Amino acid sequence: MGSGNGKRKYWVGFDLGGTKMMAGIYDSEFKRIGVARKKTKGREGAAVGVGRILDLVDEALKEAKVSSGEVAGIGCGVPGPLDLKKGVVLQMPNLGWDNVPLRKRLEDKYQCPAVLANDVDAGAYGEFRFGAGRGARCLLGVFPGTGIGGACIYEGRILRGANRSCMEIGHIRVVADGPLCGCGRRGCLESVASRLAIATQVLAAAYRGEAPHLAERVGADLSEIRSGVLKDAIEQGDKAVERILRTAAAQLGSGIASLVNILAPDIIVLGGGLAEAFPDLYRKECERAIEEEVMASFRGSYRLAIAELGDDAVIAGAAALAANPAAMGLALSSAVNTP
Amino acid sequence: MGSGNGKRKYWVGFDLGGTKMMAGIYDSEFKRIGVARKKTKGREGAAVGVGRILDLVDEALKEAKVSSGEVAGIGCGVPGPLDLKKGVVLQMPNLGWDNVPLRKRLEDKYQCPAVLANDVDAGAYGEFRFGAGRGARCLLGVFPGTGIGGACIYEGRILRGANRSCMEIGHIRVVADGPLCGCGRRGCLESVASRLAIATQVLAAAYRGEAPHLAERVGADLSEIRSGVLKDAIEQGDKAVERILRTAAAQLGSGIASLVNILAPDIIVLGGGLAEAFPDLYRKECERAIEEEVMASFRGSYRLAIAELGDDAVIAGAAALAANPAAMGLALSSAVNTP
Repeated sequence: MGSGNGKRKYWVGFDLGGTKMMAGIYDSEFKRIGVARKKTKGREGAAVGVGRILDLVDEALKEAKVSSGEVAGIGCGVPGPLDLKKGVVLQMPNLGWDNVPLRKRLEDKYQCPAVLANDVDAGAYGEFRFGAGRGARCLLGVFPGTGIGGACIYEGRILRGANRSCMEIGHIRVVADGPLCGCGRRGCLESVASRLAIATQVLAAAYRGEAPHLAERVGADLSEIRSGVLKDAIEQGDKAVERILRTAAAQLGSGIASLVNILAPDIIVLGGGLAEAFPDLYRKECERAIEEEVMASFRGSYRLAIAELGDDAVIAGAAALAANPAAMGLALSSAVNTP
Repeated sequence: MGSGNGKRKYWVGFDLGGTKMMAGIYDSEFKRIGVARKKTKGREGAAVGVGRILDLVDEALKEAKVSSGEVAGIGCGVPGPLDLKKGVVLQMPNLGWDNVPLRKRLEDKYQCPAVLANDVDAGAYGEFRFGAGRGARCLLGVFPGTGIGGACIYEGRILRGANRSCMEIGHIRVVADGPLCGCGRRGCLESVASRLAIATQVLAAAYRGEAPHLAERVGADLSEIRSGVLKDAIEQGDKAVERILRTAAAQLGSGIASLVNILAPDIIVLGGGLAEAFPDLYRKECERAIEEEVMASFRGSYRLAIAELGDDAVIAGAAALAANPAAMGLALSSAVNTP
């Protein structure tokens, strides 16, 4: 893997999140030497939105004292559906985007190659290269958020669909006749173990008077239920909150067990705010559920780890993908190993 | 891909099935030029069992008029658990085998490289190279038998665990509180859609008087329920038999939908005796269930095909793997694409 030619030796990683965005500048050893953050907002159309992205990259470059002519490549993690081949963001409802050729806009401005990746893929790749899953043969990344993100780094490359990401693990069914899921079915992993599913259960418990400390702090406001709030409530004695978290973590493990049977990962990296805020609880409950539910011959065949990079996972992974686009599996013709 | 050096230009494919075994000889264009079949039997230990395998290879070579000195490589598909790195059959209960170094025995006798592969992997690879899934980017193979075999050929290589096969798809849960499965849980794909699950349901229907034509033919003997018998019964008007098959095919589709969400295959190859005997029924019921249950964005993203190679899939795939062992993902160091 090269690190750019001549003076182009820095990599840019970008995380275009639904609520916030972040740009990181990396040197040729992938040490982060600059970073900038901004809220993702505005539905003023693609031109304005892309302008904000470019401004944020410039800001991070300035902090790193790197000129745009020194950028060797840019990687950008995006939550919405992408056309991987064309480098187009198909949809980004928060921004009111439709078919935005973000890769080309980045390449035009910085005159260097750019890649767009699914943000969960980029984050899992970051953990594979620099975090909890370094050197794994097959890394399964599981990131509960509003939905439940999944990614698999298989022998150094992101497992993906022909022109899109795959690993939509949120709709594995884990509970018979469970809660209604956004997809219209019942008992999907996402409907019981996502951050949103946990938050709504906690809120209901508070409303019923089972979590008085939490109720005092957040009232009936779903948007106030964050990891820190849950942590405080548990420490203050809200047993119901802990019970809900433990159950959700175990159900997450149940979904992961299905994936272990299918992909035989050697490492499972659990990320996202809740897993990182409650590492011991998640490790314990997930592992117990996985061991109970995987086929006997898979027991003990994997390691379960909590993500290490936090907010940096996506920008670090995206920068590394810019430097090693083969890991995105885009150089398909050379990858297919048939006569 | 080479076709062997000098006069070593023929490939041997072997299918070590639980009830029968089969050897095929292939020329450098993978045209089959010889074949031999034998029942798999005998628990006289590894030496006798391996001897029977070598005899069958010799028989096929003789039919093809190929000398053992002309064999460039041997591939062997095995149903039991394998140590892929060491080329050892860990268990083969039908033969009473434990830790049999089959690869070495083949290499010693024919003085050429040999590979052992999981038989489902070999069969799926056969369909990928020569059958219904030629040229697929990501092929998902699904083979209902006593259990339900699964395999994935991803960008030309078999998806696998570190030292074993993966894709144990039989234990995806498809029915809430369904029948008890061999694994101890309920409602696993295998418990409702395997050939065995279908046969037991059909037998029960016959016993209840709902499938008179079938009952007349097989009595209460489970082992008599084969594809041809089911076909005849349906043609003679046993509606219950058709209903059972349609339901099982739909449940198979339900399990496949979960896999489509995870792996985004471009082609799904359905194989095994029942799918091949009832191609239209399986195609229709599976496709309907998949389309109904996959995430909306995956609809229409794949093609469903019935396996084309029949009994030849495993020997053809195994021979091709012998010629292209990189497809087994064993040359790991070169495959990992990290700095």
